[in-house]
Amino acid sequence: MPPNGEKPLIDEERKSWIQQALAEAKFDAVICALPSDVLLLTGYWPVTGASVAICFRQGPTVLLVPDDEKEIAENGFADSIATFTADTLEEMQSITHAVKPLLTGVLRRRHPSPGVIGVESGGSSQAASYLAMHLFGNGLTEFIREELPHATLVHSDAWIRNLKSVKTPLEIQKIRTACGIARNSFEVGAVRLRAGMGEPAAAELFRAELKSAEPSPHRFGRSDGFVFCMSGPNAAKASAAYARTRHRILEQDDTVMIHCNSYVGGFWTDITRTYTLQPPNERQQEMRAAVLAARSAALESIKPGARAAEVDTASRHAIANFGLANYLKHGTGHGVGFSPMSAYSIPRLHKQSPDVLREGMVFNVEPAVYIEGYGGMRHCDMVAVTATGYELLTDFQSDASSLTLRHASSRQTQLAETGTKV
Amino acid sequence: MPPNGEKPLIDEERKSWIQQALAEAKFDAVICALPSDVLLLTGYWPVTGASVAICFRQGPTVLLVPDDEKEIAENGFADSIATFTADTLEEMQSITHAVKPLLTGVLRRRHPSPGVIGVESGGSSQAASYLAMHLFGNGLTEFIREELPHATLVHSDAWIRNLKSVKTPLEIQKIRTACGIARNSFEVGAVRLRAGMGEPAAAELFRAELKSAEPSPHRFGRSDGFVFCMSGPNAAKASAAYARTRHRILEQDDTVMIHCNSYVGGFWTDITRTYTLQPPNERQQEMRAAVLAARSAALESIKPGARAAEVDTASRHAIANFGLANYLKHGTGHGVGFSPMSAYSIPRLHKQSPDVLREGMVFNVEPAVYIEGYGGMRHCDMVAVTATGYELLTDFQSDASSLTLRHASSRQTQLAETGTKV
Repeated sequence: MPPNGEKPLIDEERKSWIQQALAEAKFDAVICALPSDVLLLTGYWPVTGASVAICFRQGPTVLLVPDDEKEIAENGFADSIATFTADTLEEMQSITHAVKPLLTGVLRRRHPSPGVIGVESGGSSQAASYLAMHLFGNGLTEFIREELPHATLVHSDAWIRNLKSVKTPLEIQKIRTACGIARNSFEVGAVRLRAGMGEPAAAELFRAELKSAEPSPHRFGRSDGFVFCMSGPNAAKASAAYARTRHRILEQDDTVMIHCNSYVGGFWTDITRTYTLQPPNERQQEMRAAVLAARSAALESIKPGARAAEVDTASRHAIANFGLANYLKHGTGHGVGFSPMSAYSIPRLHKQSPDVLREGMVFNVEPAVYIEGYGGMRHCDMVAVTATGYELLTDFQSDASSLTLRHASSRQTQLAETGTKV
Repeated sequence: MPPNGEKPLIDEERKSWIQQALAEAKFDAVICALPSDVLLLTGYWPVTGASVAICFRQGPTVLLVPDDEKEIAENGFADSIATFTADTLEEMQSITHAVKPLLTGVLRRRHPSPGVIGVESGGSSQAASYLAMHLFGNGLTEFIREELPHATLVHSDAWIRNLKSVKTPLEIQKIRTACGIARNSFEVGAVRLRAGMGEPAAAELFRAELKSAEPSPHRFGRSDGFVFCMSGPNAAKASAAYARTRHRILEQDDTVMIHCNSYVGGFWTDITRTYTLQPPNERQQEMRAAVLAARSAALESIKPGARAAEVDTASRHAIANFGLANYLKHGTGHGVGFSPMSAYSIPRLHKQSPDVLREGMVFNVEPAVYIEGYGGMRHCDMVAVTATGYELLTDFQSDASSLTLRHASSRQTQLAETGTKV
């Protein structure tokens, strides 16, 4: 039981969906070690990447964790947890070496032995669960092959991607909580943005609260995140696959893009707001109008059964109506949750996407215009598909009036009123 | 050429050591994709983990990078760089898929084809190069096997670990720079520590400067890092394999442990200082004396040819002289640089370590005492082995006098004088 005395949150939907997916794929077991995959199977987000989850069809889910992560693992929903110690004062051994006898025990206790085992194999994108991540590489799979020479090992990557694509109500609640913490960060940061600041200091304004906003040891797990500031011409480069804070000094007539990827308990957000430090000029107003029109068009097309490609088309048409079609340089969005990044997340809101939206899918909607040498504007929301449409998880604007309203009693009110936010 | 117009820094030592190691191992080529391995082979630290380095014996080192990382890759010392685009508006494809034709081209242009190729295979620890990391999994190795069915693929893990263990002068300069930025962060943060703060706010004081202290776009690459605060009884738990900031409020008589892992251009630090918020009581004074005695004993034993186990023994004996032998719960240190973490870094300062110190090795020296339920004290330095002894890369204390001296002209002077730092 967790040290705070609360019972762990058992995600019954997730447990049942995993079993259903094992049956459909005819897997007798799945064995995972990448942190986001362990999170999927157990509700526990490993810190150092040394943990292994073994999930049997019509059987238990067993976790092998380093002893100093036991307390965190107990907040998940694995049926049993066995711990190991890689290094003691007397002995040095690799994590793989420490895990092996436990894994052998788990596999041998299971009768009959699993015949078909899903193992991690191909490409994936792993969110940073800590400042460094242990990776088993191919060592775990090689060991399973030795232990169970008659088992058939199959790639579980596609199975995992599909299972991650729809979130349970509890998982959405965690993402909603992360979005709430991020909202607070954006609102605290936005009113302090000033011309003359460097991009690093500007980003820092929005980052500090991601950790400290957490009011108490959170039942959903640890929270924190990353924030980037891209201003003026640097914002035009923000269509890249990664955000990058440089050392430019913010100027009064910039568009200032603030991009945030934050998490609660391993569930990530992907949020961007773009500010101006003075009332927007005509060009900025047009960029803003185009982006917000694309956002509305995209949101209105979201419902179960809709094709993801249609959402992209809707947003792209809206931008084109402003003559800015060439400036939306990426798809309209991608699945977010177990990872903030796009490469392997379902759905993809892209012209070529084969995905169909389903209730419980969570993704970002990020219409943008990037004008080389001038600036960029992106408004990136988090959205969950509901039974009839969508829930906007980041229902906050970045204009001065909403900021003023929310901070009416704070000493920042005056500051907020001096700048018009896009 | 980098956009700032400066020529890239060519690490001739590293290039020559790689060739020498390829010859010794009889590898015709090595192919790597994990970010710290690409950094080792090319001086370029990938952002998103999508890059591949191919290093031929008596031949060129070729980089395959996503087009939006080209600018960063050009600051490294690869002989040639080819770029790819995984996603366009017209096409969605996986990173592995996008890389394959380029890799095929590189391998086919090489005559004769490589016979023995080192590939990443087993366990490793990868520092967070970004908020999420693309991993090829086993996909790259499988592809190489298909492309070159007559080649012999061998595990390169041990080869890479050994090559990483000794740093070149340029690599040490990057680590020294990272230590300097961290030093500034510690000094800025320490004078602002107060009872009544939560651990997250305390950690934040030390983190903000890691990014913004960077005075200009840095020739060595991006800089940032992670900081953790563990206070009072939480500091006693800091012997775990990972640091963890909780939500405890700092109390006047706490030991407050600040742990930092920061980087410049992919080269990491591992630094801890422990503060008291008032003059230390007798017990804290004893803990401090034991830790500093262990530190001195460890440092004095460092020189080329010394056994790493002896450094551990020296520090352990010193702690034992204070009757605190049972409270140093981990080895005295481990290799740091390409990763902040210990699992696979050479040398290990541990009783069972087979390592012998060599000039250019960089590691931490982290004597500590952890007293369950009461508190903990750790002093973790970064050290480089020189021709005759060692260079202390983190030559700063955490006592009030040094802080006061360095901040004599700042308004924090008075604050610093109110607290005695351990």
